[in-house]
Amino acid sequence: MDTEKEPTVRRGRPRSEGADARIVDAALALLIERGYDRFSVDEAASRAGVAKTTLYRRWPTKDHLIVAVVGRFQDTVPVEYSGDVRADLVRYLTAIVSGLDRMRRAGRPATSGDSSAGLVAEVAAAAARHQDVGAAVQEMFRRRNALVLGLLEQARDQGELRTGIDPEVLFDQLAGALYYRLLITGRPLDEAYVEHLVADALRGASA
Amino acid sequence: MDTEKEPTVRRGRPRSEGADARIVDAALALLIERGYDRFSVDEAASRAGVAKTTLYRRWPTKDHLIVAVVGRFQDTVPVEYSGDVRADLVRYLTAIVSGLDRMRRAGRPATSGDSSAGLVAEVAAAAARHQDVGAAVQEMFRRRNALVLGLLEQARDQGELRTGIDPEVLFDQLAGALYYRLLITGRPLDEAYVEHLVADALRGASA
Repeated sequence: MDTEKEPTVRRGRPRSEGADARIVDAALALLIERGYDRFSVDEAASRAGVAKTTLYRRWPTKDHLIVAVVGRFQDTVPVEYSGDVRADLVRYLTAIVSGLDRMRRAGRPATSGDSSAGLVAEVAAAAARHQDVGAAVQEMFRRRNALVLGLLEQARDQGELRTGIDPEVLFDQLAGALYYRLLITGRPLDEAYVEHLVADALRGASA
Repeated sequence: MDTEKEPTVRRGRPRSEGADARIVDAALALLIERGYDRFSVDEAASRAGVAKTTLYRRWPTKDHLIVAVVGRFQDTVPVEYSGDVRADLVRYLTAIVSGLDRMRRAGRPATSGDSSAGLVAEVAAAAARHQDVGAAVQEMFRRRNALVLGLLEQARDQGELRTGIDPEVLFDQLAGALYYRLLITGRPLDEAYVEHLVADALRGASA
């Protein structure tokens, strides 16, 4: 018996990892259905078929669980320099806009005309409320943004961007404009805006 | 008696306006002391010396009251075109950074090393949670930003900015970068960053 069991144990995922994945999947589905306000940690545990204690040991509050889940809202957008940095940025930022849009619509009927930031704002507030959640959100963005910053460095090395450019400051201007409109001014976001933004940021404002 | 009374009534503020101002003052002081989590609407009413019902009639939830108060965190920065748009933008955005910093520190000891967005994030979440609060926040920013957009138009008319520039898209890149760092990536904000940001946004990125 022992000789049969061992390889199975080695091949399989550790039990806790399987449970984690099931919880995150169930929580994501529930979050899309309900939105932040009506999302219940207990219901996520029950849908995932795990004990509440298992879930709370891993994610002590609703905010912790939600942040573990929202990374899934952003498609894994391929970030590869094509030799046309303008086109690459438009494609990448348009994908971010779609991800933000799916996130802000969580828990709302598809026909809802509500333009509010919804879950995007709740995640920012969760990050502000708990130091460990804040650290996790910052680490998620650090890892995600490293890819696009690498692309901008390549574009600079290839002579598409000017030599002295700071990729981080440029990307702050681009991603920042999107989050600012969604979270603060409530102005609409669409592909036309992204194209305008990228063109202006690359061109500069001075006469 | 009537002839004496009438002018007094006309000169004085309506009673409810006086109560509103007292409530907002008391709420601001309490908010700075306690921060969002430990802010209590009932205590704000008691400090302002008004009945709770008076306060709740005007601001039905804590989120409504908080948003009425946070406008006060931003100094009234004079927005006047000096003929040097770079210097004007650095001055204006540095004032925004100070206002955001006072806001995010609300309820924390001055020595706290906590860099989280605090109240700034809670206001964004409050705006996302209630349609009327969201509309109020957007209107506050529309009015505030109209001044700096006017400044950018003047700079364009004077030939400091290029003819085709869209002041709103330029300002999204500037203010957006600040809010993005504070709310999302957690990267630090200071005057050196503001100077770098303004210089890069005005200069453009293309080689």
